[in-house]
Parts: sequence; structure tokens; C-alpha cells
Amino acid sequence: MRLDPDRLLPTDPATRGVARRLYERVAELPIISPHGHVDPGLLLHNLPFGDPAELLIRRDHYITRLIHAAGVPLERLGVAERANGAGPAPGREVWRTFCEHWHLFAGTASGYWLTSGLVELFGVDRDPSAENADELFDMITATLATDEFRPRALFERFAIEVLATTDDPMDDLAEHAALHADPSFHGRVIPTFRPDAYLDPASPGWAERVAALAEWNGCAVSSYRGYVDALAGRRLYFREHGAVSTDHAMVVPRTVELGEGDAAALFAQALRGELSAAEATTFSGHMLLEMARMSVADGLVMTIHPGVYRNHSSATFGRFGPDTGNDIPLRTGYVEELRPLLERYGNDPDFHLVLFTVDETTFSREIAPLAGFYPSVYIGAPWWFLDAPDSILRFRAAVTETAGFYRGAGFIDDTRAFLSIPARHDMSRRLDSAFLARLVGEGRLELAAAERIAVDLVDALPRKAFKL
Amino acid sequence: MRLDPDRLLPTDPATRGVARRLYERVAELPIISPHGHVDPGLLLHNLPFGDPAELLIRRDHYITRLIHAAGVPLERLGVAERANGAGPAPGREVWRTFCEHWHLFAGTASGYWLTSGLVELFGVDRDPSAENADELFDMITATLATDEFRPRALFERFAIEVLATTDDPMDDLAEHAALHADPSFHGRVIPTFRPDAYLDPASPGWAERVAALAEWNGCAVSSYRGYVDALAGRRLYFREHGAVSTDHAMVVPRTVELGEGDAAALFAQALRGELSAAEATTFSGHMLLEMARMSVADGLVMTIHPGVYRNHSSATFGRFGPDTGNDIPLRTGYVEELRPLLERYGNDPDFHLVLFTVDETTFSREIAPLAGFYPSVYIGAPWWFLDAPDSILRFRAAVTETAGFYRGAGFIDDTRAFLSIPARHDMSRRLDSAFLARLVGEGRLELAAAERIAVDLVDALPRKAFKL
Amino acid sequence: MRLDPDRLLPTDPATRGVARRLYERVAELPIISPHGHVDPGLLLHNLPFGDPAELLIRRDHYITRLIHAAGVPLERLGVAERANGAGPAPGREVWRTFCEHWHLFAGTASGYWLTSGLVELFGVDRDPSAENADELFDMITATLATDEFRPRALFERFAIEVLATTDDPMDDLAEHAALHADPSFHGRVIPTFRPDAYLDPASPGWAERVAALAEWNGCAVSSYRGYVDALAGRRLYFREHGAVSTDHAMVVPRTVELGEGDAAALFAQALRGELSAAEATTFSGHMLLEMARMSVADGLVMTIHPGVYRNHSSATFGRFGPDTGNDIPLRTGYVEELRPLLERYGNDPDFHLVLFTVDETTFSREIAPLAGFYPSVYIGAPWWFLDAPDSILRFRAAVTETAGFYRGAGFIDDTRAFLSIPARHDMSRRLDSAFLARLVGEGRLELAAAERIAVDLVDALPRKAFKL
Repeated sequence: MRLDPDRLLPTDPATRGVARRLYERVAELPIISPHGHVDPGLLLHNLPFGDPAELLIRRDHYITRLIHAAGVPLERLGVAERANGAGPAPGREVWRTFCEHWHLFAGTASGYWLTSGLVELFGVDRDPSAENADELFDMITATLATDEFRPRALFERFAIEVLATTDDPMDDLAEHAALHADPSFHGRVIPTFRPDAYLDPASPGWAERVAALAEWNGCAVSSYRGYVDALAGRRLYFREHGAVSTDHAMVVPRTVELGEGDAAALFAQALRGELSAAEATTFSGHMLLEMARMSVADGLVMTIHPGVYRNHSSATFGRFGPDTGNDIPLRTGYVEELRPLLERYGNDPDFHLVLFTVDETTFSREIAPLAGFYPSVYIGAPWWFLDAPDSILRFRAAVTETAGFYRGAGFIDDTRAFLSIPARHDMSRRLDSAFLARLVGEGRLELAAAERIAVDLVDALPRKAFKL
Repeated sequence: MRLDPDRLLPTDPATRGVARRLYERVAELPIISPHGHVDPGLLLHNLPFGDPAELLIRRDHYITRLIHAAGVPLERLGVAERANGAGPAPGREVWRTFCEHWHLFAGTASGYWLTSGLVELFGVDRDPSAENADELFDMITATLATDEFRPRALFERFAIEVLATTDDPMDDLAEHAALHADPSFHGRVIPTFRPDAYLDPASPGWAERVAALAEWNGCAVSSYRGYVDALAGRRLYFREHGAVSTDHAMVVPRTVELGEGDAAALFAQALRGELSAAEATTFSGHMLLEMARMSVADGLVMTIHPGVYRNHSSATFGRFGPDTGNDIPLRTGYVEELRPLLERYGNDPDFHLVLFTVDETTFSREIAPLAGFYPSVYIGAPWWFLDAPDSILRFRAAVTETAGFYRGAGFIDDTRAFLSIPARHDMSRRLDSAFLARLVGEGRLELAAAERIAVDLVDALPRKAFKL
Repeated sequence: MRLDPDRLLPTDPATRGVARRLYERVAELPIISPHGHVDPGLLLHNLPFGDPAELLIRRDHYITRLIHAAGVPLERLGVAERANGAGPAPGREVWRTFCEHWHLFAGTASGYWLTSGLVELFGVDRDPSAENADELFDMITATLATDEFRPRALFERFAIEVLATTDDPMDDLAEHAALHADPSFHGRVIPTFRPDAYLDPASPGWAERVAALAEWNGCAVSSYRGYVDALAGRRLYFREHGAVSTDHAMVVPRTVELGEGDAAALFAQALRGELSAAEATTFSGHMLLEMARMSVADGLVMTIHPGVYRNHSSATFGRFGPDTGNDIPLRTGYVEELRPLLERYGNDPDFHLVLFTVDETTFSREIAPLAGFYPSVYIGAPWWFLDAPDSILRFRAAVTETAGFYRGAGFIDDTRAFLSIPARHDMSRRLDSAFLARLVGEGRLELAAAERIAVDLVDALPRKAFKL
């Protein structure tokens, strides 16, 4: 196991030379991570990571899912069960199971990031296997106990300039505040407002969340106006704590125009538990439009992540909860779905709407053409299953000819795997260099322009799209 | 700014050598342009082009949309407003705004064509910028005033053999007739029958158009039979003026079998303004089938361009009208939609139906399999957003393995940007050479066969598909 | 006409070297063909093939469709008409027509296989043409009359280890039994249970087939329980005759949960011919779920081939029957459609479900994510229109980053063209070598891992997925 210094660059020697030159310009630039799922407490408390299973395996559903697919039950991978709240398998066992299945990750994005992390951070030089599992476990555990591997030390070593977390609208953001107030920490760690469960009446616990909003806002639970005001208020609270964006997930990114009277009526019906599935969709489509209206008002960037069938296996969900590898992409559309929103706010350049997708057919057909006209629309980086080498090159080829390079929002790592952050950003930089080098080689771009674009992709673009 | 003589050819040296050899066979062949949007008056009156903004920017919504997306209002780009009928910004200002945004076009198809035109036609050797905008404006304006840059001189210099325009069915085609009668012009410029607004009762002004047809035909406006006969008559009028094809756009390419009685009843209802949206779709689907019936009778080739949500931004449409950059592709299907039409006429080799798409998923899934069975079905070139280097190579890879090379209809430029015509056809020839060269390099095609195919793609194929 | 020894390998010299090394490891491995349409009688009776038209043209709808698309009626290609049961054109004429249209196959998968077969098996060294058609016909006919070209001799020469046929559930499998009992034949030829026409009440002749099942089972035709038991019984009969899988085709792979009472009621209604189209779909979706239940019980692997509009041209179907080149792919979905099935059996590692598609958008979006979680789900090889060089490379790129290499089911040739079997498997091995070599060249895979994977793809994977 080793890392080729030219990995992910084109195999054609001349093009590789150009790509290497472009990559060298961006390899060491600071990391801007405007969307992800790292726990802010990690950096606040700065406790050492435990062992490699805890760090790399049991919380990373990209990894557990593939071993599960090979027939290994999730409990053997240390995935926490809902009932008892803890994974039954000890770290050493989990790690060994992982090592035994290392071959499954060949060619995958996860395999690429794991390899990068194991080699670069821990100096591993052999493929993980049943034979060396214990030895690797002990070595990595010992390394993690050193001060150099505490979260803050890694944060600095990774050169992270901005790191956004993802947070519940009622989170008091105390950890963010404490981190911000801590004179010994200089990183910029910012929250993100993620209100899905407050906007969709079909989401379990919605009524309780509405009640919490009302309590915070000091209004009647039954007041639709109070509910909307509370959401606006919580957005401001987030903004005051450094947030620059709100994030929204939904199956279909439908937006719906609804008068206040109709919205209030549906809201009342929802509180009584009398909303049909279609009505719930109408209401949450309306609330998505409300979120856009508030974005225009408070300046928070709106990002949407649609098109995923969450918790496809209800048995797995029942036992292990969400984020356990059985979220599956669906065919997605944006053009008709987002039209009410774009009709209202699409031409406002101060409104920023970043569109993500897991249906790559939409890149050339819908997202690039939308972003190629509406000043508010930014193209989100390939996300989740598409955040991988060939997928990223397909993405670039799909959007660039229509929208150029300057309608993108930069790379996001979207990860809860803290250690994989540098490998992910590095992967993206290598692939953008590879793509640009091909255009140079094909006479479609001057080298000087490619050099400027390579830097803008990791610097100017995310700063602009996310108002950083 | 310069043009690499090997641009768009593969970077691998051996494959590039083969591609260059193929390209040399076709580089100088005459241009056959069987579908586009050039104004015939341009060639009839042969007036000099005004300035570079007029020529290259304000009428080209491929370009204005991308600058609009960067936050520049369309009026600053000289896009004519409906109310006052003219762009408020003077050409020099528009041109400067364009030059300031030149970097947006890196990697886009428009950027490629613009570069080709600026370098090859005007000898520009630096990237447009705020600094050189005025100088370029003056230089190009002066060049355009010379006789060598009059439309007819360029028509000859571009070696255009056939140029099809797109025309309203009630157009008297006087400009075409005058051009044809002009002994000093030897080019073949032919009209195309584009009846969408006459077939779809939901189209604004439909009733007035029906009335115009009735008047021309000397029948009662209320006569469905008269309406159908008038359309058939106008098609013949077009054919007598050189037309070889009819062109049809619609959101969904649905065709509907309707008896004459049912059709006449919907027609009457439509004239009374009492048609529902669903009924309008049924009627226009029926009329599409009627168009196919007439094609079988009069021999005009039928081309369809479906799957675009036109005028997505109603504010933009209201102020600036159609073709202002906010037409966005939609998911499209052909297999079930076109079945009634193919059931009737699909196996008739004298009927020619050219299918275009902006949903590239349909290339391998639907269009190539349909064209690989039905002798009437021809594969249209990648169109609009897909008329770009990587998209064209994806297209070739998607259709060739199923349908071979000989079910294609050749390249179309589909442009109103007269100056971009040679760059567009040249781009297509380079990419076909690149694709063929790869197949040769991979041992999938003999060089001699590739040489024959390269020529057929620009010569025999469009002649056959468009009956030229 | 010649075969490049490096055909289908990457053109970049260094990558080609790696690919060649990988290919050498697998080139001579035995062929495992777990899904196809070869007639078992071919091997039982071991009669010589007739002439090249019979062997290569008139039964291969991949080929006849493309000549039909060029305007040649199917009867001139020897496609048997339903009324008289035989193709009207003699073999020599059919062959000549094919040779005249040889250029149509350039760049197609069929062209690739035909070239391989003609060169490797018959030593042809010139492109087929009108001029050499008779000479080739005579040469190939003479060759086919030799003992070396009898089916069994070719079976051995092709190194086929397992060959699965596709069979009607009521087939007595006598030919399979006889072949198995024949001491002079050592190959493994196994049947496959293909029950579509017994499960879908909308299928013509369904009631007669239900009656045949009832008769075999000795129960009343009207007994739903008897119908289900008979299907289970026939599956066991197939298993006893060596079957390892059942195969299912449908337009939409919808599965439906239905109580026995509801199912029995729909069954009774269907027998009375009173089922609506929607009800028929519900019933067949229920029966697909029943098939999965039986697979869990009897261990037969379940393969599904959805998303094809069969017999799109009803005139062609009426005159020439099914499998005449007018089956056209449709947009397909799996995630919501298969959920009821996966809810019940998806997490059972002993249940094997192989998903095929002709809608390549589903590879990255649905199939790879499903197979990357559910231990029961295996990724089927690119099939039919997608079983071609560029399509296969797109497939690998689309699924590998999400699901790795080990969720695949290996290659299937799916062919009734016996002579094309080695060329098809060889094509797949070359392309997998090309894909792996690229990953090695891009530093994403160690050479040793690539060598192991290359072998597993043709050996361990199909054995595991198909329980061979």
C-alpha cells in the first residue's frame, strides 16, 4: 500500500505533466469546508480519538454498508443499536472484520480515502488483512493517543480555514459559542441551519418540534404566524453564531405557492394529525418557499440535497436508526419543481441557491442550464455516491460546456469522517487539475487560464457561493 | 488567444495522428446546414454587419444568459425589451460588458466558437478584457465594414452549400424567392416549415393564426377540414420554394390517434376558447400525427425538437420575450410517446423522422434503439446544450454501438449566429475524427473504413436524411 | 479484415501494457455462461449448422434489425413469417443481402462479434461485400459441414464450463435430461425457469398456461393455492434438472404485497377475463414477490430483466412474431418498485437477486447503491443494447466507485447466437482489463489487486452470484 504522487492525474504523459503543474498550484491551499457533519464538540473538547474502529468504521455508513452487503450483520461492525444505544462489538473485533473485508473497497471512493488516511496519517504500508489487523489496531490506537492526533492539532495540520457543521434549528449552539470564545482555538467553525424535521409535518416528532419553536418564541403552538416567526428567529440566532447557510433535504424539491390563509389551515390540520400525505407535501413545499423568502431577507445561502429514499430497509432503520447505509438515490427533477421558487427569487443575485444531486442525469439536463441563466443558482459539487473520481470527472464534463467554471459552488466534503477531510479535498483538487489539463491538451483552454481557474475552484468559488 | 491546429483531437499522440489524418479528409468539405435560424434577408440584402455587439452578443442567448447568470441585467447586454423594441445599451457598452466577462466562457461551447471566430475571422490574438474592449470593438467594426465581411462574401468563404432557415407557415417566403431569383447569388438557401404555433391551441394567438390559414385557403375559420387542408397547402407552398423539411417543437413528443369527428369537435371547442390543458395536448398530439401523414404524402422530412421548458422565467419573458436564455431541458421520452406515429408510418422508408433531444439519457436508451429498427427514424445531432465537444463525444459513444454510423442525420448548427457556422461544423468534424480515431486505435475499426465514414458523416448522411 | 491482438485495450501505451498483462491472466479461463438462449437440442443432437445465413443472420435480431432500418424488409433477411413458418428467402440470398450491408455494422457490438467470429472461426480476411458474398457463403457452408464445427466440438473448443438455457416452466426438460445422461458429453448445460407468461394475466394465453399447471399439479384450474403450488413444484422440477436460477422480464419491476385472499380474488377474476390492466399489474407484481419467497425456500437465484417495450411495431409483431428487433428500452426504476420485495428478503444473504437494466442511468443512481447495502442484491452485467465496449466501460465507471467489484454477478452473454459466445466473453475480459489498467495507471489500484480482481470477475463472481 502506497500513494502514487501522481494519483488521479491523467495517464497520458503530456497531459499528466500539465495536470501536475496545475495541481501544484492548489495542493497546499487552505481547506474551505462549507458543508459537513463533523461534531463541533470534537474540536471544543479536543479529546483524543479512541481507536481506529471508532474513528474510521462504525460511524461511517459509506463503509459499514459495503461490509453489510457482503453478508456481515451491522452489529458485528459496531453500529450502535437503538435499544441499547451502543454497538455490541468491541473496537478490536470491528477493526478485524473491516480488515478481513478490505478487498471490497478496491476501486471505491471510500477505499481511496481510507488508503490516503492510513498511509498519510498513520504510515501504514501494507493492505489491511486478517493477519495484520491486530498489529494495525494497536499501532493506530497508540498514534491516536498522542497529542499530534488530537482534533485541534489535526485541524491545523489539515489547514482547515472554515468548517461548517450541520445543526438542529433548536440547538443552542453552545458548543459553537464556546469554541468561538476559546482564545486558544483560532479556526473558524460555523453552524448550519438544517430545518427539515421542522418543515415537514410527515416527519416523526414534527408536532413536538413545533411546540419547542413556540415555547422559544413565546407564542401559542397553534399559531402559524408564530411558527413562521420562530423559524425566522432561529435563523437569525444561527446567523449571529456565524452560520452562512441553511441546508434542506427532501425527496422531491417541490416548491408550492400558498396564501397565508391556506398555509395556516394546513398547519392547523397538521397539528391535529389530520394531514394527508399529499397535503403534507404541499405544506412542506410551501415552507421551502418560505425558507427562500427568509434567505432573501437574512442573506443565508440556501442549499438543497434532494432525491434520496431514506431508510429504505425499515428493519435496519428500526434496529439501528438512520444513516446506516440504506439511503438510496431516486430519479430527481428540478426544472418544474423549483419553478415557483425561481419565479419569485431566481433573478435576485443576492439570493444564493446551491443545487446538489445524486441523480447525475440532471447535471447536463437541468442544473447546468438553470445555473447558466439564474444568477441565484449555483451548481453543487457531486455529492454522496457521486463524490468519487470518475463521477467527479463526469460531473465536470456534464456541466462545464453549458455553465462554464464560474457557476459552481466549490467542493464540499459533506462528511462526518473528520480524518477523511484532507483526502477528500485533495481528491477534488487532483481531479479538477486532471480535467483542466485535458482541456489544455485538447486546445480548448490556455494554460494560464487553467491555472487561474484551478485556484478559483478551491478559493474564490466557495467563498462567493457561500458568502464566506 | 490562439487556435491549436490539433484542437479537439485526442491527446494520446498515436490516436491524434490518426484523427488528424481523418480530419484532413473532411476539413474543407462544403457545409450542409439543413436546420438553423439565419434570417434569409441577411443574404438577400447583403448589408454589412454593424458592430461586434450586434453581430456576436445581443442576439445570441447562449452568450447573454451566462453573463446574466453572473448578475448583469439583460438590458445591459443590449437584449431588446418588448415594450420599446430595442436594447437600451449601445453596442460599445455591450461589447465592453462582454469583454469584462470573457472568463465566464472558458470551457463552454460558446467560448470555443467565439474564440474560433475572433481568431480566424478577425485575427484577434489576446483574450477580450476590459482593457482591450474598445480597441477590439473598433477593429472588428472596421473589419465588418469591408466588402469581404458582407454576408454573401462570408457565405462563399464559409463554403456553405445548403443553408436552411426556419419560417412561419404563413410567411410568403418572398425573401427566399427573391434570393433564388437573384442571378448574382448562387447559394442554396431554403425555408423550413415550422408550424408549432398553428398546431397547439394553447399557444397564444392560435385562433388568429387559424383565421389567417382560413383566409389564405378561402374557407370558413370554423372548418376543421379547411384548417387541415390549409396546412397541407402551405406545406406544398414551402416545398415549391425549396423546403425539404418541417420542424416541430413541443414539451412532450406525444402523438395521438383521433378520428376526424373527435378532432373537429376539439377544434371547434378550441376556437371557442373552451379547451382544457389536457384537451389541448390531445389536439396538438393529433396534429403532430397529421403532420406525419402529410410528410408521407408530400415527402417533407419531419424533425422534432422536444423536451424544453420554454420561458422558465416569466418575468424575463414578459420584459424581453422568448429566446432569452431561460429555456431549460426536461426529462424526455420517445418510446411510448411516438408509438402511434411509428405504428402508422415508422416502417415506411420514404418517411423521414429526425429525432433531436436535450435529454442525453435518451440517446442510448431510446433514440438509438428506435433508429436501429425503424427505417424512418434518423438520429439527430446533439442539439443546443449538447452541441459541445464532450457532449458530442458522449453522443457518439451512446448511439454508435446500437445504431452504427449510418442512422444519423449529420450535423446541424441550429444557429442564428451566422459567423459561428463554420466553427460549429469544424468542431463537429474534429470530434467525429477524434471518435473514429479512438475506434481505430482500439482495433474496432479499420482506418480505411474510418476514412469513408468520416466523409459520409458530413456528406452522404445529411443529404440522405434531409433528402438534399 | 483482421483482429488486432490488443483490441479494446486502452490506446495510451503504458496503460495498454498493464491491460495486456491483466488480459493474459484471464484470456484462456473457461467460460461460465449463467444466462443465455441457446437451444439445448443443438448440443443434444449435435447436428451440423446449415449455412452462414441460418447460423449468423436470420435468427439474430441484433443484426436483422439494423438491415431492416436501412430499408430492407425482414422477409428478405429470412426472418420466418408466422403464417407460413419459414423465411421466404433462401440462405444464399440472405447472406448476400447481409454482405451488401456490412458497412452498417461498423462501430456496433454486433459488428465486433461478427468480425471476431468470421476471422477467428472461418479465417475470413476481407470485409464481406456484394462481390465476395457467394464465395464466403460457400466457404463457410463447407466449413460448417466439417466435424470440427459441430456444436459439441465448438462447445469444447470454446472451453464452456457452464451453459444455462432459458426454458418454459412446463418444459419437460427432456433434452436437458438426455444431454445430462449422455456419457459422451461432459459439458454442464442447465435449464433456467422463465415464468413470465405464467405470472402475468395480461399475457396472451395465460389462462391456458394456468390450466396446464393445474393439470400437471392435479388440482382445479380455479384453485389459486393449486396454481401457486404448481409453480413451486415446477421450480423444484427445474432445480432437480440442474437449474440454478429463475429469470423474470417485465416492463416495470414492481412488487406488490397482497394477502392470499386478495390474490385469490384477482386470480379468479383473471380467469374470468375480467381483470383491468391495473389489476393485472398488481397481480403480476404480487406473483413476482411470490417468486422471491420461493427463491428463499428453494435457493434458486432470481434474475430480473425489466424496462423493455416489447414488440413496439405491432405490424412487425403480427407478421414475424416476437424477437424481431423492435423491442425498445424504457426509463426504468428499481428503488420504489422493488421495495416490498427487499423489505421482506433483501437482508437475507442466501437470497440472490441479480438486477439487469437497459436504462444505464440506473447504474450509478439505483443499482450500485442497492447492491452496496443489501447482501441479496447483485449487479447484473450490462445487457442487450448496453453489452458493447463503450457501454461496458461506462457501466464499470458508474458502479465501481459505489459498490466496488465484488457486488457484481459476472458477465452474461444472453445470446442465442452460439458462435458469438467466445467473442462476447472475450470482449468483456478485455474491457475489464482495460478498466482495471486505467485504475492502476491512475494510482487507484495496485497491480497485484488488479490481477486478483480480473480473475475473480470471470471466475469467483459468477460462481458466487449464481451459486455454481
